Amino acid sequence: MVLTINFERFKANFNELAAIGKKDDGGIYRMAFNADELLARNWLEAKLEAYGIPTRRDAALNIIGRYENEANQDKPAVVIGSHIDTVPNAGALDGALGVLVGLECLLCIKEQSIQTAYPLEVIAFSDEEGRFGGMFGSRAFAGQLNPRIIEESQDLDGIMLSDVLQQLGVDPYQALSASRPKKEIKSYLELHIEQGPVLDAENVSVGIVSDITGLFKWQVRLLGAANHAGTTPMEMRKDAFMGLADFAHEIPRIIDENGGEASRITIGNVALYPGSANTVPGEVDFSIDARDVSLEVMNELKDACRKALSAIARRRQLSFDFTEASMIYPVACDNQMQSHLEEAAQQLEMSYKVMPSGAAHDAQMVAKIAPIAMIFVPSKNGISHSPHEWTDWHHLESGANLALNALVRIAGDR
Amino acid sequence: MVLTINFERFKANFNELAAIGKKDDGGIYRMAFNADELLARNWLEAKLEAYGIPTRRDAALNIIGRYENEANQDKPAVVIGSHIDTVPNAGALDGALGVLVGLECLLCIKEQSIQTAYPLEVIAFSDEEGRFGGMFGSRAFAGQLNPRIIEESQDLDGIMLSDVLQQLGVDPYQALSASRPKKEIKSYLELHIEQGPVLDAENVSVGIVSDITGLFKWQVRLLGAANHAGTTPMEMRKDAFMGLADFAHEIPRIIDENGGEASRITIGNVALYPGSANTVPGEVDFSIDARDVSLEVMNELKDACRKALSAIARRRQLSFDFTEASMIYPVACDNQMQSHLEEAAQQLEMSYKVMPSGAAHDAQMVAKIAPIAMIFVPSKNGISHSPHEWTDWHHLESGANLALNALVRIAGDR
Repeated sequence: MVLTINFERFKANFNELAAIGKKDDGGIYRMAFNADELLARNWLEAKLEAYGIPTRRDAALNIIGRYENEANQDKPAVVIGSHIDTVPNAGALDGALGVLVGLECLLCIKEQSIQTAYPLEVIAFSDEEGRFGGMFGSRAFAGQLNPRIIEESQDLDGIMLSDVLQQLGVDPYQALSASRPKKEIKSYLELHIEQGPVLDAENVSVGIVSDITGLFKWQVRLLGAANHAGTTPMEMRKDAFMGLADFAHEIPRIIDENGGEASRITIGNVALYPGSANTVPGEVDFSIDARDVSLEVMNELKDACRKALSAIARRRQLSFDFTEASMIYPVACDNQMQSHLEEAAQQLEMSYKVMPSGAAHDAQMVAKIAPIAMIFVPSKNGISHSPHEWTDWHHLESGANLALNALVRIAGDR
Repeated sequence: MVLTINFERFKANFNELAAIGKKDDGGIYRMAFNADELLARNWLEAKLEAYGIPTRRDAALNIIGRYENEANQDKPAVVIGSHIDTVPNAGALDGALGVLVGLECLLCIKEQSIQTAYPLEVIAFSDEEGRFGGMFGSRAFAGQLNPRIIEESQDLDGIMLSDVLQQLGVDPYQALSASRPKKEIKSYLELHIEQGPVLDAENVSVGIVSDITGLFKWQVRLLGAANHAGTTPMEMRKDAFMGLADFAHEIPRIIDENGGEASRITIGNVALYPGSANTVPGEVDFSIDARDVSLEVMNELKDACRKALSAIARRRQLSFDFTEASMIYPVACDNQMQSHLEEAAQQLEMSYKVMPSGAAHDAQMVAKIAPIAMIFVPSKNGISHSPHEWTDWHHLESGANLALNALVRIAGDR
C-alpha cells in the first residue's frame, strides 16, 4: 500500500508557519525563545491539539506530539521531527520543514487509522541553530546536557539561557530531566533540506543519508619573520603566508591520499601580521575545517595535515602550533532504517541518492540513544541560512511522501 | 691620497642627534615637522654654522649647507645627504646617518682645505618617511612637486601639510620654487643603511648600489561563491582563497621565468569574506607588491601575474579584477659615480658588494635631475624602522670613509 500526504494541507501549514517571524527584508527571525519563536511554538501546539494529537513540552521546552493506541502505548516511540527555530534572516525551510512533515505524517496515519506497532512522536527540538550554543533540545533529549552548559550558555548579546528559561517559567536545571531513556525511543527520523548543491545539481528529489560527517576544527599559527618586501631577497625570507599557501596546495593531495568522496578540508579564515602590502608577513593565523564520515579517515586527515604543516614549517624556517577548537564525531545512519527508506522510495518509484550529510543536525545528538535516519530534499543552488533558500514544491511533496511511507514501515504497520 | 673621517667627532655628532626625539620606549619619534624634528633641524643648522658652513632652508624646508670657493662657486654642486625625519618608534640610523656622513665629509674636506672642482652641498631632505606622503623635500628639489600634492597632503591625524608649512612661516605654494635646475646639480650621493639582510649575512662593510628597484603594487580581488564548508563537495566549490593559494604557488615560477636576482613578489595583506571557519570563502582581496631593477622585467612580471591570475580564475570558476595602487619606475645609479665608488673602495682596501636597493630613497627623486649613486652599510639582522635597527661602528666608519674618498673623486680634487 502506498500512502500519500495531503499536499494542500501541508502547503497551508507550511505557509502559516513561514509567516511567523518574517520581517520586511524577507528574512525569518525566529531565534530560539524570542517573541516570534514563542509564537511559532504556540502555533505548532495549537495545530497539534486541533488535530487531536496530545502535545506536551518537556523540561527542555521541546514540543512533543504523540499518537499512540492501547496496544502500543508502552512500547518505545518512533520519533520524527526537527526544529522550528531559525538563524537570523533565515528562509522558510531549514528545520521547520522536518517538523511540518512530521506533523503531516502523524495526521495522515491518524486519519487513516493506521495501527502501528510502536507509538509515534513528532518533535520540535529547542534551539538547534545555536542562539545559546546549538542543539540544546536534542542534547537534553539524548542525555548529553550537563549543568555547566545550562549555567554558561549565553547569546551574542550576553543574555543567559538560564534567565530566559526562568522567564518562561522553567527551572533551568530541570532541563536535565528531559533526557529520554534508551528504552523509550525506538528510532528517530529527520527530514531536512540538504543545505548543499548535490541533489539540485543532479535534479534528484530525495537524498537518503548514509552518515552525518564528523568535523575537526583547528586554529593554526605559522610564525616566520616580518621583513621589508623590497630589501629581503626571496631566498632569505621566512614568509608565514607562503607557508599557508604551501599547505593549501597540499589539500587535494591530502584528501586524495587519505580521504574519500565525503572528505572536506576548508580554510575559511586567514589573518596576516603585520598585514601591510610592503612587508613580508611574519605571522599567519588560519582555520582548518575538516570533515569526513569515518573517524578513521578523520584521524588520517589529521595526521596528514600535521605532517604537511610540519614539513612546510621546516622547509620555510617557520615555527607552527595549532589548537583543536572542536572535534565532533561522525555518526552512521541505521542500516535497517536506511533499507526501509530505500524500499519505500522504490515502491514510490522515486529516484534517490544515498549521500552523506556534511552539516550537523539534531539527529546527530539523538544517535546517542537511538538508531537514526535522515531524508534530504534539494536546496536550490545549494543555498541555505538565507531568505533565498528554496526547494521546489514537487520535491517537498516527494520528500514528505517518502517520510510518511518509511515511517509506517519503521513503526510497523501491522 | 687616502682621506679618513674624524671618527670621534662623527660619533659625538651621531649620539647628539640620536638623543633628539628619543622616548622612554627607546624609539625615536622625529616625524616630519613635529616638535622633535624641528629641534633636530635646529641642531643640524647650528652644527653646520658652528663649523663655518653657510646654511639655508629652501622653500621646501630642506636644509642645505654649502662649501664652495671662488673658483668653483658658479659650477653645479656635488650634493651628499639624506633625511633626518623618522618613522614613529625609529632607530638612530635610517636617514640621519646619511646626513651625518655628509656633514662629516664636508668638515674633513674643509679642514684639509681640499679645493674641489665643484662646490659641495650637504642636504637634509624634508619628510622622506612620509608623515605627509613621503619624499616631500626631494620631490620639491627635483621639480616633481605639484600644487595638488601641496593642497591634499595630510598626516594620519588629518593635519594638512599646507597648514603645518604656514605655521612654520612658509607659503606652501612656495615649495614649488625649491626645484633646482639641472644645471645647478652635478651629482647626488647618498649613504643609507641597507634595511635588508644581505650585507649583514655576508659580513661585508659596504654595498655599492647599482640600481634602485621599481615597484608595482596591485590590489587584487578574486570572486567565487561562499558556501557551507560541510555540504559543498570539493569539486563543486568556487573557493576564492584556493585561487590565491594557487597564485602564491606560482610566484617562484613567475620569478624564475621572467625575473632575476633582484625580483621580489610579496603578498603582504589578505582579507577573506565572509571569513568564518565553516564557510568556503567567496571572496579574497589581497595585495601584490612586486619589484625589480629593470622596467622591462617589471612589465614581464606584470604580464606573468596577470596571466597566472587569469588562468587560475578560469580553472576555479572565479572572476578577478585588480587595481594598480602604485607604479614606481626603477632608477639606475650612474656608472661613472659607481666607478668612483669602486675605485675608492679598492684604494681603501675595503671589501664591497655591488647590489640593488630594494627600498625607495630620496636618491630616486633626485635622479630626475642629476646622476646619483648610493652607498649601503649593513643592517644588523636586516632590521629597520625599529629601535633595534643597528650597524656596527666599524661598518659605519668604513661607509663614511668610502663616502669621503668617493666624494672627493666625484667633486674633482684638483
